[in-house]
Amino acid sequence: MKNIFTICLLASTLAFAQKSDEERVKSFYDASLLNGKSYEWLDALSNDIGGRLSGSPQAEMAVKWGERELRALGLDKVWLQPVMVPKWTRGEAEKAYFQIGGKKTAVPICALGGSVATKASGLKASVIEVQNFEELATLGKEKIAGKIVFYNRPMQANLISTFSAYGGCVNQRYAGAMEAAKYGAVGVIVRSMNLRMDDYPHTGSMTYGETPVKDRIPAAAISTKGAALLSAQLKEHPRLQFYFKQNCQQFDDVLSHNVIGEIKGSEFPNEVMVVGGHLDSWDLGDGSHDDGAGVVQSMEVLRLFKETGYKPKRTIRVVLFMNEENGLRGGRKYAEVAKEKGEKHIFALESDAGGFTPRGFSFDCSDAAFAQVQSWKPLFEPYLIHYFAKGGSGADIGPLKDENIVLAGLRPDSQRYFDHHHAANDTFDAVNKRELELGAATMTSLMYLFDKYGTQPELEEKIKG
Amino acid sequence: MKNIFTICLLASTLAFAQKSDEERVKSFYDASLLNGKSYEWLDALSNDIGGRLSGSPQAEMAVKWGERELRALGLDKVWLQPVMVPKWTRGEAEKAYFQIGGKKTAVPICALGGSVATKASGLKASVIEVQNFEELATLGKEKIAGKIVFYNRPMQANLISTFSAYGGCVNQRYAGAMEAAKYGAVGVIVRSMNLRMDDYPHTGSMTYGETPVKDRIPAAAISTKGAALLSAQLKEHPRLQFYFKQNCQQFDDVLSHNVIGEIKGSEFPNEVMVVGGHLDSWDLGDGSHDDGAGVVQSMEVLRLFKETGYKPKRTIRVVLFMNEENGLRGGRKYAEVAKEKGEKHIFALESDAGGFTPRGFSFDCSDAAFAQVQSWKPLFEPYLIHYFAKGGSGADIGPLKDENIVLAGLRPDSQRYFDHHHAANDTFDAVNKRELELGAATMTSLMYLFDKYGTQPELEEKIKG
Repeated sequence: MKNIFTICLLASTLAFAQKSDEERVKSFYDASLLNGKSYEWLDALSNDIGGRLSGSPQAEMAVKWGERELRALGLDKVWLQPVMVPKWTRGEAEKAYFQIGGKKTAVPICALGGSVATKASGLKASVIEVQNFEELATLGKEKIAGKIVFYNRPMQANLISTFSAYGGCVNQRYAGAMEAAKYGAVGVIVRSMNLRMDDYPHTGSMTYGETPVKDRIPAAAISTKGAALLSAQLKEHPRLQFYFKQNCQQFDDVLSHNVIGEIKGSEFPNEVMVVGGHLDSWDLGDGSHDDGAGVVQSMEVLRLFKETGYKPKRTIRVVLFMNEENGLRGGRKYAEVAKEKGEKHIFALESDAGGFTPRGFSFDCSDAAFAQVQSWKPLFEPYLIHYFAKGGSGADIGPLKDENIVLAGLRPDSQRYFDHHHAANDTFDAVNKRELELGAATMTSLMYLFDKYGTQPELEEKIKG
Repeated sequence: MKNIFTICLLASTLAFAQKSDEERVKSFYDASLLNGKSYEWLDALSNDIGGRLSGSPQAEMAVKWGERELRALGLDKVWLQPVMVPKWTRGEAEKAYFQIGGKKTAVPICALGGSVATKASGLKASVIEVQNFEELATLGKEKIAGKIVFYNRPMQANLISTFSAYGGCVNQRYAGAMEAAKYGAVGVIVRSMNLRMDDYPHTGSMTYGETPVKDRIPAAAISTKGAALLSAQLKEHPRLQFYFKQNCQQFDDVLSHNVIGEIKGSEFPNEVMVVGGHLDSWDLGDGSHDDGAGVVQSMEVLRLFKETGYKPKRTIRVVLFMNEENGLRGGRKYAEVAKEKGEKHIFALESDAGGFTPRGFSFDCSDAAFAQVQSWKPLFEPYLIHYFAKGGSGADIGPLKDENIVLAGLRPDSQRYFDHHHAANDTFDAVNKRELELGAATMTSLMYLFDKYGTQPELEEKIKG
């Protein structure tokens, strides 16, 4: 009953304040589209700094850049939060070909993040194509030992959310080497997580799990066109040889930082709301969509509050997380420190799904909190924001999860995301200024509503108290 | 009362048949995304034929291509519908610069479609910048005579629909020369209809209205970056000279064709439903978004019906209209012939807003028909199709309008559309395969629903009868 009462109270408050909310929301969209800073920031992060894998000099440049830009906004507080991160380097550009008789055909590959190198002269072996781990088990050691396992299960094109298609395939990349090593494979080639047919190999994180160091085998992604060609050739020439060479290297952990800025809440300074993206990226492109976009949109939320003269009641914190891609150390560290300090986080929003036209949000929260969000849908309709669903939020804010927090993820249009994800064409020119700015305004509007009305778990607590 | 009764009847029919509708819709999306032909067709139209302005050899190649591809589908009937179209040619690439003292700075321009040429040596004059026609009137002949009028009103970036922003500016392009000529201007330069800052000039149609031939002045579009530069320089150097040269030419009308194919209805063959896009395009790019996408999506509707084994009750006709861009002769001819033959058209759908992720449809129809459409919204939700609004449909199907027809336009995401519209970068690589295919499946689903349930005006007529 309390829930229903609270929602009614809230709804009537909302009806009364509706006009003002509409005006506020419009002011965020207007300011973002007419006088936004997100695109200029992304230009700097992508083109002046570029790809910024954890532990790289570019990642450290990005930390300094983020701190400097947040300071320039005149926030109440800006600081760096130390965190140890893995350091892995790709080394020289990888080489690969398949060989039929005397004829070698080059194919585009890249080492998966965290993979071991091949020996300096490279690795050459015959290839066995599989679609999944079950097929590995069926084939067994006899058919696999001494070979390169080629995982070629494509992303399912008839899924409307490309993230679902990704989710259905990515275990090949993440755990493929670990699984293949159990059957004596000497290397792994994985079809890129990409719905387009093109020549870009897509990297991404992988794990060796408990595999002893001596048994770890090198793993690389092959472009979708390369995968199709290899698969076709294997049907005709099952004994073809595949060669690849990569000299990537894992180093000891190094010190890096999350970059944090905040506006102190005017009424409830002890209630913290987080908005963020991750500052690190893969190394092949410049990380514009993943996740430069999320970084600059999150910064823009605080800038838009200031530019439009909105003074938040609660403490609004932007967090530029380090090391989402290959460790999640930044996200874990932020949550750990927040817990140590006994900080009360009521809401966290992440943008980490590309800088495309925003469609809405997914929410990891209670039913009551979700009902509260749904009451705000009409405010978003003029901006064609229509998608409000329960679902995952973002990797970096995940560690903050408890029963009293509402977690949310921006959901942009997903159709083009995996065309660029973790590949050399994740570059600034693939981001449209308006789409990026619409995302920033949409995030700002949601932050504003949670700031103004609080979150449902929090309201319930107050009623109880 | 009859309306309400009909809607209730319809709603209960729909509830009963819901599962089957869901399955049908899914079959269209699956077939389009897994085994679609739209992208392959667009590749041919864009890359083998290219830009296809009415009256050009490429436009005639496109007619032949369309006819051949429709015949290959095994439709019940395919034919060409003759129509006389204007023929205008751009000639050599245009040249333009502004000159301050001895220093010439080149800027990217292109002739507007239908413009007269400059004299062979070009046109040089001082420039007066205006934002709109009211400002022209205020300045009057004294300030304008002998000068080049530079229309520089930008598209309004804070409008969410870029088509609204276009609508607020395009009179500068369409009627700018005619209006400026009234005050003795010698030429017109128009800021490109583009929300991005870049180096592409965007062409498009214009009119001289009743201006006598001897008083017609040349008109060109300048890129947005060029416009910004010229405007800034004019503030410092108001007497700078602008030079441009274009040798475009208007010829007598020539014979061309609409390309039409149909599947005969199994139950109501005399009720016609049209789906279409326009086969002609501007000449600078290859016309992939405008409107190659609409052409291949419309063809795909009929192909998907056949591939999934759906046999329409009504006659489904695909029309590839000629000459939307600079005359609308194809659309007018189609409606004229339909009227002459006494054909009963109950529904027409056009795709002419780019091959981007579909968001929904706009409808030009009665309230009752719109209520019918809204009852179908849940069927589209799994595909993130959420936008159903009253509004314009499409230029080519507009001439079919009467009280008994439902007209609809596909509404894709509009954010990137004017980045490419009528410019050299409207090319195949700017179209994403999945986005194009989602649009085709969305159109097919709507056509299916109207075919299965009929349209509201038609139902009302049956109840009356």
